[in-house]
Amino acid sequence: MKIAILPGDGIGPEITAQAVKVLNALGERFEMDTAEVGGAGYAAHGHPLPDSTLKLAKDADAVLFGAVGDYKYDGLERALRPEQAILGLRRELGLFANLRPAILYPELAGASTLKPEVVSGLDILIIRELTGDIYFGKPRGVRECPDGPFKGQREGFDTMRYAEGEIRRIAHVAFQAALKRDKRVTSVDKANVLETGQFWRDIVTDVHKEYAGVELDHMYVDNAAMQLVRAPKKFDVLVTGNMFGDILSDAAAMLTGSIGMLPSASLDANNKGLYEPSHGSAPDIAGQGVANPLATILSAAMMLRFTFGLTEQADRIDNAVKRVLAQGLRTPDIHEAGSTRVGTEEMGNAVVAAL
Amino acid sequence: MKIAILPGDGIGPEITAQAVKVLNALGERFEMDTAEVGGAGYAAHGHPLPDSTLKLAKDADAVLFGAVGDYKYDGLERALRPEQAILGLRRELGLFANLRPAILYPELAGASTLKPEVVSGLDILIIRELTGDIYFGKPRGVRECPDGPFKGQREGFDTMRYAEGEIRRIAHVAFQAALKRDKRVTSVDKANVLETGQFWRDIVTDVHKEYAGVELDHMYVDNAAMQLVRAPKKFDVLVTGNMFGDILSDAAAMLTGSIGMLPSASLDANNKGLYEPSHGSAPDIAGQGVANPLATILSAAMMLRFTFGLTEQADRIDNAVKRVLAQGLRTPDIHEAGSTRVGTEEMGNAVVAAL
Ligand SMILES: CC(C)[C@H](C(=O)O)[C@@H](O)C(=O)O
Ligand SMILES: CC(C)[C@H](C(=O)O)[C@@H](O)C(=O)O
Repeated sequence: MKIAILPGDGIGPEITAQAVKVLNALGERFEMDTAEVGGAGYAAHGHPLPDSTLKLAKDADAVLFGAVGDYKYDGLERALRPEQAILGLRRELGLFANLRPAILYPELAGASTLKPEVVSGLDILIIRELTGDIYFGKPRGVRECPDGPFKGQREGFDTMRYAEGEIRRIAHVAFQAALKRDKRVTSVDKANVLETGQFWRDIVTDVHKEYAGVELDHMYVDNAAMQLVRAPKKFDVLVTGNMFGDILSDAAAMLTGSIGMLPSASLDANNKGLYEPSHGSAPDIAGQGVANPLATILSAAMMLRFTFGLTEQADRIDNAVKRVLAQGLRTPDIHEAGSTRVGTEEMGNAVVAAL
Repeated sequence: MKIAILPGDGIGPEITAQAVKVLNALGERFEMDTAEVGGAGYAAHGHPLPDSTLKLAKDADAVLFGAVGDYKYDGLERALRPEQAILGLRRELGLFANLRPAILYPELAGASTLKPEVVSGLDILIIRELTGDIYFGKPRGVRECPDGPFKGQREGFDTMRYAEGEIRRIAHVAFQAALKRDKRVTSVDKANVLETGQFWRDIVTDVHKEYAGVELDHMYVDNAAMQLVRAPKKFDVLVTGNMFGDILSDAAAMLTGSIGMLPSASLDANNKGLYEPSHGSAPDIAGQGVANPLATILSAAMMLRFTFGLTEQADRIDNAVKRVLAQGLRTPDIHEAGSTRVGTEEMGNAVVAAL
């Protein structure tokens, strides 16, 4: 069981350290190796995804990823900026299925900007296709506008695209996930405007024929953005493309008000995966020992579940996190009157103790 | 002052009738002509945007638009579906600037799914580019996938694109609007991934040089979706492309919980405009006399303001709407205990009385 640990930038190293501690406390034999990625990769090796880091990730069974990005790299050209590492890893490792649960722990209902009755008990799973769409489509660039009223001017352009097989495999992931949950899938597209959207809808509808036990409905992306605000609990599994998934999964995460609690998994076709918190690198609080490590710890639990099939150990971690919340322990991002404020390391230790 | 009235489908005719009544009560000399559009256009003339309707709209100084769409047209091929009318009008009339205020009337703060302290007093203006982007970009369609692991399969594809001049003119609209408000513009893109996004950012930054009095910041679209949920009141003017604007403007509208109150304007380069409520055609409640006409009435006020320069008359309508709200009159969509439930027509009459 080889795990590549890629702490990255900002709070990445602090939070990853806590997840490693939790993994080590399970009594399993993991082989862990660490490498620089993102801004740290650029600083050490001149590239956000150094060859040595990519090799480590490829050779491992799973990757535990912290976060990347820092203001100090804002001036770099796009190809060298920290976030290119995450795009590169997704593409190079074929991590096409991004699973992002948006769960609101009852103890944290007050942290949401939404009314408690709208979000308490929220438990939705957003499945975002992660290696296709306008993120990687070609051609793209800046060219001379070929026709129309702006002919001859410069224009920026990108290509949105989805091949049949790409849609099929992510649709299967969504239907399979729904079978283990409330058996409802909402597929989100923009079929009323985009050719890609209509094609997406047709293929998802076709794959659905293999899943008689799962209910499928289709929703336009603008409406999905509204329904997430209006009645998020009505969703079970939501599946969508890379671009719309980027927007909707972040919106859904923010509904909980506690994005510091939300893990994610990005899987390939063979259950190899990259696991990372849904939040970013928060360079403004880096190194202060106040970052919330729970999303990363819960990401490690997803790793045990999806890559290593260690369901029992994954449950142990999930339950330990619930227990520390029940004990009233809170990092500053989720702190409320009456709860006990702890730092990154204390929180990690508390989870280990609760295992 | 020629106005084309296009009531459309669902509740469109009912709500448009109330706005017409309000316009007629102002004592100005408007010339109004009505034509079918959307499903009604298809039913009457075999096309959602019949030639005669398009001609009427072109010949008019402004268009008052109800809403289009009904379940009964779901089976039509895409080119004949009701929403093609709205895309056709935008393109044919060159309505590139969509202005969508998201305002929460103090009396209606309870209708929001967000906590009152997060949204009360909300007053943001979303400016969405409306004739470019992936909505109209070519090439698009379904083709054989030319390369990569899915080579030879079918794929759906679309082209995102923005020419320099298209970005410049919408940026000017945003900065000009900000000058009349809190003088802050947030430009939303996905410059960390898309070439179009980086190009958009570069051009908006360049246009900003002409507006020393306006503050500009840039935000990625996923972060913007989060910030709208987390702290929407921090925004003043938000400007973005057609696709992201579709998603974010609907999310912002839903924050208020009273989308039945929100007008919109879609303007060309010479202040000709199409004015319509932000909500849809609600076929489920059509013909029952319960739809909220206020968004359409407020859209008529925007028309007076932007197309006809009748600021005083526009203010009269805006104030009349505030007055009926203060009187406690509510259509069912915004009804709360203690307020007086009224129907579409009563609400329209109340606004006329309050003028
Ligand atoms: C950093 C960025 C390229 C990335 C994305 O857009 O996918 C991020 O927003 C995410 O969602 O993981
Ligand atoms: C009906 C549809 C084509 C349209 C759009 O996507 O622009 C609508 O959602 C809107 O926002 O006006």
